[in-house]
Amino acid sequence: MTSYTPTSENKFTFGLWTVGNIGRDPFGGPVRDVKSPVELVHLLAEVGAYGVNFHDNDLVPIDATSAERDHIVRDFKAALSETGLVVPMATTNLFTDAAFKDGAFTSNDPKVRAYALQKTMNAIDLGVELGAKIYVFWGGREGTETDASKDPITAIKRSREAMNFLCEYALDKKYDLKFALEAKPNEPRGDMYNATTGHMLAFIETLDHPEMVGVNPEVAHEHMAGLNFVHGVAQAMESGKLFHIDLNDQAFGRYDQDFRFGAVNLKSAFFLVKLLEDNKYDSSRHFDAHAYRTEDYEGVKDFARGCIRTYLVLKEKVAQFNADKEIQALLAEINANDSSTDQYFGKYSSKKANELKAQTFDREALGKRGLGYERLDQLTIDLLLGVR
Amino acid sequence: MTSYTPTSENKFTFGLWTVGNIGRDPFGGPVRDVKSPVELVHLLAEVGAYGVNFHDNDLVPIDATSAERDHIVRDFKAALSETGLVVPMATTNLFTDAAFKDGAFTSNDPKVRAYALQKTMNAIDLGVELGAKIYVFWGGREGTETDASKDPITAIKRSREAMNFLCEYALDKKYDLKFALEAKPNEPRGDMYNATTGHMLAFIETLDHPEMVGVNPEVAHEHMAGLNFVHGVAQAMESGKLFHIDLNDQAFGRYDQDFRFGAVNLKSAFFLVKLLEDNKYDSSRHFDAHAYRTEDYEGVKDFARGCIRTYLVLKEKVAQFNADKEIQALLAEINANDSSTDQYFGKYSSKKANELKAQTFDREALGKRGLGYERLDQLTIDLLLGVR
Amino acid sequence: MTSYTPTSENKFTFGLWTVGNIGRDPFGGPVRDVKSPVELVHLLAEVGAYGVNFHDNDLVPIDATSAERDHIVRDFKAALSETGLVVPMATTNLFTDAAFKDGAFTSNDPKVRAYALQKTMNAIDLGVELGAKIYVFWGGREGTETDASKDPITAIKRSREAMNFLCEYALDKKYDLKFALEAKPNEPRGDMYNATTGHMLAFIETLDHPEMVGVNPEVAHEHMAGLNFVHGVAQAMESGKLFHIDLNDQAFGRYDQDFRFGAVNLKSAFFLVKLLEDNKYDSSRHFDAHAYRTEDYEGVKDFARGCIRTYLVLKEKVAQFNADKEIQALLAEINANDSSTDQYFGKYSSKKANELKAQTFDREALGKRGLGYERLDQLTIDLLLGVR
Amino acid sequence: MTSYTPTSENKFTFGLWTVGNIGRDPFGGPVRDVKSPVELVHLLAEVGAYGVNFHDNDLVPIDATSAERDHIVRDFKAALSETGLVVPMATTNLFTDAAFKDGAFTSNDPKVRAYALQKTMNAIDLGVELGAKIYVFWGGREGTETDASKDPITAIKRSREAMNFLCEYALDKKYDLKFALEAKPNEPRGDMYNATTGHMLAFIETLDHPEMVGVNPEVAHEHMAGLNFVHGVAQAMESGKLFHIDLNDQAFGRYDQDFRFGAVNLKSAFFLVKLLEDNKYDSSRHFDAHAYRTEDYEGVKDFARGCIRTYLVLKEKVAQFNADKEIQALLAEINANDSSTDQYFGKYSSKKANELKAQTFDREALGKRGLGYERLDQLTIDLLLGVR
Repeated sequence: MTSYTPTSENKFTFGLWTVGNIGRDPFGGPVRDVKSPVELVHLLAEVGAYGVNFHDNDLVPIDATSAERDHIVRDFKAALSETGLVVPMATTNLFTDAAFKDGAFTSNDPKVRAYALQKTMNAIDLGVELGAKIYVFWGGREGTETDASKDPITAIKRSREAMNFLCEYALDKKYDLKFALEAKPNEPRGDMYNATTGHMLAFIETLDHPEMVGVNPEVAHEHMAGLNFVHGVAQAMESGKLFHIDLNDQAFGRYDQDFRFGAVNLKSAFFLVKLLEDNKYDSSRHFDAHAYRTEDYEGVKDFARGCIRTYLVLKEKVAQFNADKEIQALLAEINANDSSTDQYFGKYSSKKANELKAQTFDREALGKRGLGYERLDQLTIDLLLGVR
Repeated sequence: MTSYTPTSENKFTFGLWTVGNIGRDPFGGPVRDVKSPVELVHLLAEVGAYGVNFHDNDLVPIDATSAERDHIVRDFKAALSETGLVVPMATTNLFTDAAFKDGAFTSNDPKVRAYALQKTMNAIDLGVELGAKIYVFWGGREGTETDASKDPITAIKRSREAMNFLCEYALDKKYDLKFALEAKPNEPRGDMYNATTGHMLAFIETLDHPEMVGVNPEVAHEHMAGLNFVHGVAQAMESGKLFHIDLNDQAFGRYDQDFRFGAVNLKSAFFLVKLLEDNKYDSSRHFDAHAYRTEDYEGVKDFARGCIRTYLVLKEKVAQFNADKEIQALLAEINANDSSTDQYFGKYSSKKANELKAQTFDREALGKRGLGYERLDQLTIDLLLGVR
Repeated sequence: MTSYTPTSENKFTFGLWTVGNIGRDPFGGPVRDVKSPVELVHLLAEVGAYGVNFHDNDLVPIDATSAERDHIVRDFKAALSETGLVVPMATTNLFTDAAFKDGAFTSNDPKVRAYALQKTMNAIDLGVELGAKIYVFWGGREGTETDASKDPITAIKRSREAMNFLCEYALDKKYDLKFALEAKPNEPRGDMYNATTGHMLAFIETLDHPEMVGVNPEVAHEHMAGLNFVHGVAQAMESGKLFHIDLNDQAFGRYDQDFRFGAVNLKSAFFLVKLLEDNKYDSSRHFDAHAYRTEDYEGVKDFARGCIRTYLVLKEKVAQFNADKEIQALLAEINANDSSTDQYFGKYSSKKANELKAQTFDREALGKRGLGYERLDQLTIDLLLGVR
Repeated sequence: MTSYTPTSENKFTFGLWTVGNIGRDPFGGPVRDVKSPVELVHLLAEVGAYGVNFHDNDLVPIDATSAERDHIVRDFKAALSETGLVVPMATTNLFTDAAFKDGAFTSNDPKVRAYALQKTMNAIDLGVELGAKIYVFWGGREGTETDASKDPITAIKRSREAMNFLCEYALDKKYDLKFALEAKPNEPRGDMYNATTGHMLAFIETLDHPEMVGVNPEVAHEHMAGLNFVHGVAQAMESGKLFHIDLNDQAFGRYDQDFRFGAVNLKSAFFLVKLLEDNKYDSSRHFDAHAYRTEDYEGVKDFARGCIRTYLVLKEKVAQFNADKEIQALLAEINANDSSTDQYFGKYSSKKANELKAQTFDREALGKRGLGYERLDQLTIDLLLGVR
């Protein structure tokens, strides 16, 4: 039996906030003690992670002195060095502090917007110092409970102004850094701006430096809106914008569950792994999830190992799918092309349009053809269940 | 009391398929007789509509002969002329016929893709002949039930190729025509590509002629995904892409209900009307909905009049909101700016960044400030309920 | 203009935890200082509340000594006496403490189950001491993240055993107390047992003392499952089981938002008030909601006053609906009965069945009749918008 | 490798309407030719079904003459006899005809209610004649689009009156028949009464003959409301009310998808099979689903075979789970009981209550214990994926 051992090529990463989550929720207090960043790095090394990501305040408390900051960073670097873990990504916490209760970059209060820019510049410096090449933006409070409170068009303009400023900052500093924007439809705000990865991709095109900005789609966030995650990620990949990805799982139409990768829907997880692997995605496979609140730190390790294991098992099944003769024959048949219409595709010409208009199609025959998708899907199910 | 009489400035339009809907659904047969396009034009005139839109096959059956087509079009034009109604928009039916059961532009069958292009070119010709300036694309079958059946990246490429071809076609024909893409997350397919208006906006930026392509967001479609419709429409408006809009209503997380505008959520309808009116949206206000299946044609007229009436009442309330001294004072207070941070906004400079980094913020004070949004929202509710 | 002043007949109540909510959420810390129970009683008196409800630990901290408890209770009673507020309902917090992380009555650990019983008996004593006549059970942690962890049939049996025990306890103590069970589909658990008010009503019928147990439906909880709340409450009322109600609001398919009553959907709030008032519901109208996190305590008062005001405005509109001649005429017409089938209803007899079988119905005529529901609904919308 | 061949003990059944579905949906016409009931029986025999169920009008058209009826029934019986298939269940179509557009038993029109009773009595006669022992009621139109149109309390009373009448009818006729009520939250109506299996169970307890009425839960219907189906079915089983079950699959918060069993979520399907098999459910395993609209009748057979196969594979995995030493050891540990609290459970006594109140619990220790659910769930995932 395969061992499913992760390697550095898999680029499996976790945020400090994931394995360090102490289990507080809206209805309950913490269930696990706080562990230091250094302890968490060692825990991640133990479970086989390749890297560790963080929000500024995961590592350095918001009210730390400069000396405290330096001390913490030194210790953290030592832990990285000791374990071999890298820091591929960093991000800013613009949501925990009460100052951000009505948003950071989109707050109605210009002081809050200015403070958010300041905090982010500092956090970028910290991330870069620790080696991050990707900087994630999740606007945890950018939204509303009532649209009476904020003009949505103004909110977009404020978001853009902030992103343009920060792009320039990174360029000015000559940081080797790309930005990845993460969407979420709601929670903790009633509704959040740029609700999905699609909205984010559209927003990016309106920035001054779209080339340095991509997306960081998260399974759970798109599932909250009941969307097919694979389709959204495909769009990001196809336009060269999949800079990072947050892997976890979640039932549709629920609070933000952040379950272990594959814990809810193995089939959609399979198609996601297939998309990533078939298209040679080569950035971090970041697990942005946390252990059930029933767990102690042994359970946290089980959780982290489970994320990795399920990914690797599914990756193996992708290879099996791609090598399966019956499946591949069915796919070939489904995509059969007798070349009779090839001349109509590709670049437009008047001639082509005219000829196509003159073509006769046997509409009924096109409709009658059985496509074999039930069989194909059942073969996929068999493969997933290991009975193939 | 205000009469709430529509004028041509309101540009209230309906599709033939809306008032002509005969009430068939997955569990039941029709409840209303079929009315001809000419009869429907007269019905729409009676209820005060400004214009009428159609799918090619709403007007001309898919299997009509050329002579039948000409006859139908002649009669339809006469009805338009008699009633004064215009045709601001047309679209293609690429979903009813069995040939499109696995999609039109994204079908795995190149013959189906070619036929879809042909059908669309013909339908564009028909729309333009009747005066349409906006051409809507709703990819009713562009999606999957199982992602084993179609590569999502291939699907995007096929969609793009089709849109590029058809843009060239319209340019080649020198049609005064813009395209508007309409998103939907699911139904009739298990999952549909470009699931939301955000995804469509991003897709448009990858086309050869993005300047001639915008969006046609529909309330019900975004509500199916539980999204804040106003936010999505704001993004489209802000980027100059709101070419058309489909007004109706629908509960979140449900089958496609297509209810009368305002029938489910008056508050979100109010903020939508506010967005459109405040920002001087000047294209069609298209009601893409249909009467309950309990209704006869008198009920269909009640339905259509109700769509119009609710819009006009809400428009009046928008004016009231904008003129309300208490509300406006509260908004002014919420957006107060003592100018102390003005120097940090606008175009980036190193100096600005450095100064901002050196600034001290009173984080606690920022968090302590009460924002008055409960009061503001309650004033809005009072205004909506007419008790203000 | 009506003043919308609450009276004791309206029985408007709030939980200590509602106006006392300090705004912590999964992504952010508190935004408001903690207020003592005494301060909250005064705040509630100021906004016009009739009563105040509490969980045991809202009033008495979980680790309070007996002396501390007595002191707190004495102060609280004084505040009640000073303000005239009553305590119609009390409940147990079986979810905050880590001991309950896998449930209370359904925990796999018998010690936790025993402790939950103990804590509830003590909390019942406390509630009764303060005058509560209704005791609410919300099983905040009774559920699972994975169904591998707990047998769902065992969970039901454990729930029943606990409820039977506690019913006997209340009877044994001769408490004048009824129990009201509150359902929720998910959050904080992945899935929670007895997910809806319907499931709770069914569960109650299996108890040893069903007559002393009813339900406490909450708008937000049923809306999380996208259910029509009015229908569920109607079922509870019709079977004499609506012992208490939690009024608030919430978008469908979302995290637990607990917004101000009427803040999301005025139409469904209207039909709810209509159901309660038309059927002379006479228990507490309890607002189980909290102010937006953007608010200070002035905003909390705005929030509480808004709950009350919206209820009273809608109650007035119910009276208007019931007195509206056009609406009532339409309803009479919709419910017209020519008595031609009266003989088939009521108690079954063979004769009746035979005669009914022999009856001829004009199926087509039955289907053709237009029911006027679009008009009726638009009249309701007009009434809600105050333009009628 | 196991052959996964169904036997009569599995009691796998399909409705005529499932394999006979011709693929019409709200946006498209049929994709498959109509097959006769006799042809469908043979198709079902070919794929290994045990039985076939039907609505009255699946078999006998609503406007058939008595002679036509007799002819159809004779042919159908012959097909059953030839193939060995049985008819365990029958039901009434009270939703397709326009007469039922506002409901059947809950219609505002007493003639419609009478006609619905008549049609159901005749359909019961037909079902019994063909051997049905279970009679299903799905109130496909019992609901509203606007709650202005129908009083929800009246609707409940009308439903009860109809069910009481029909129970008496079956008793009067001495039919060996039980009734099974099927819930659905919405579609085709905006909202449907008795929205979930929980609501149905509660409703049943208010009938005159609750002992002869149970439920027929359907995966897709509860998933539309985002509910954990396993929990709802467990409640029905535990109270002896699981008379029948409709197996299929569906994403949460969507239109009624009716996909192949297991096609969406293998994990929840596994726990469902586990519940049924562990508790020796012995009624029909009815697949109420249909093939994708992309399929011809070969695809329909693939669909039907896939339903059966996935069930049998999951059943095998249930046995594996129950025999897995590591999993069972973990479950034993999770449910460990040192008997120290045993004396507090079971029947209530004052003494027990007093002793329990006097007991000291180590609350912190209870909260600290890690429960191992991440590990348990990952073992389940491994088992499902066949890597264990």
